[in-house]
Amino acid sequence: MDSSIIDYISQFVKLTDDEAEILSSQNLFRQYEKNEILLAEGKYAKVCYFIIKGCVRSYYIKDGEERNTDFFFENQTIRPVSYQTKQPSEYYLSCLEECIVAIGDEARNRKLVEQIPKLFSLVAKMNEELLLQKQLELDHFKNNNPEERYLNLLENKPEFLDRIPLYHLASYLGITQVSLSRIRSRILNR
Amino acid sequence: MDSSIIDYISQFVKLTDDEAEILSSQNLFRQYEKNEILLAEGKYAKVCYFIIKGCVRSYYIKDGEERNTDFFFENQTIRPVSYQTKQPSEYYLSCLEECIVAIGDEARNRKLVEQIPKLFSLVAKMNEELLLQKQLELDHFKNNNPEERYLNLLENKPEFLDRIPLYHLASYLGITQVSLSRIRSRILNR
Repeated sequence: MDSSIIDYISQFVKLTDDEAEILSSQNLFRQYEKNEILLAEGKYAKVCYFIIKGCVRSYYIKDGEERNTDFFFENQTIRPVSYQTKQPSEYYLSCLEECIVAIGDEARNRKLVEQIPKLFSLVAKMNEELLLQKQLELDHFKNNNPEERYLNLLENKPEFLDRIPLYHLASYLGITQVSLSRIRSRILNR
Repeated sequence: MDSSIIDYISQFVKLTDDEAEILSSQNLFRQYEKNEILLAEGKYAKVCYFIIKGCVRSYYIKDGEERNTDFFFENQTIRPVSYQTKQPSEYYLSCLEECIVAIGDEARNRKLVEQIPKLFSLVAKMNEELLLQKQLELDHFKNNNPEERYLNLLENKPEFLDRIPLYHLASYLGITQVSLSRIRSRILNR
């Protein structure tokens, strides 16, 4: 389990054997059942997550309905807004599959950065990359209609179509499941 | 002009007099006319921007139509996606008002960070803050209908309503100008 987080980090910064050892010796990993809630609306996020295995869904509840905003897979970090703002969370995080997740709280993260200062630039690079993705995602969501959004997923995020149930995907695309089925059959019939 | 960028930076990291002097001595500032294009689709962004005065609009051209995705005001940074990816830009940046802007290219930014290493953590903090804003903006755009999006602007970004012409605002909200007028009169009549 540890090796995957170290492999991931090594893409961004070179770790010495000692540094890899410090990371490996942390008891970072937690296992969660399918549908287990990691964070609920109104609660304070005390930790951030790195997904080793599984898929986590983020959603808001609005007018009694769940509205999916994102799905996170292996090798992705989840840094809840509430973790940063220290305000209650506006949204939920829930395990769409059984998950193995590395957990970091603020004190531990601070200590790790003291022991391995280059982790600071790792986090900076990751945030830069995430910022870029978020901006493009927002621009594309605004500029595209639901069919274009679906085609975009097909091209750029095939794991969304493989692993996310259609009713969750419809909510993520901002349409009903019936509309999504129509879009899918239109594309198949081309 | 220089003092505003130094005041802004001082919110995030404490600068010594020498460091402030290094920043002030840079010839960072450029003036642009209203409607001048800072970056065009298909071009490579070689610089990023910090707005001292004025407003910059970002937009895509789709099906021959301009689609606004963001507006940037005083004390905001603009780090074009193309600057980071080294790929041609998918969108335009254009001055909605006459602007005074501080410019940073990669070589200069690298040199400044060598001279004032704490600027690295400044940029990291700014990116963290921007990432948070982008995530919330995307979530809210997905979860809200146009009227809710407009009310959200009223509450959180009043400068958008003061300084952006209605037809640009309508495009930003993903609706026609007629729909926006209807929303505005519905709200006024309440």
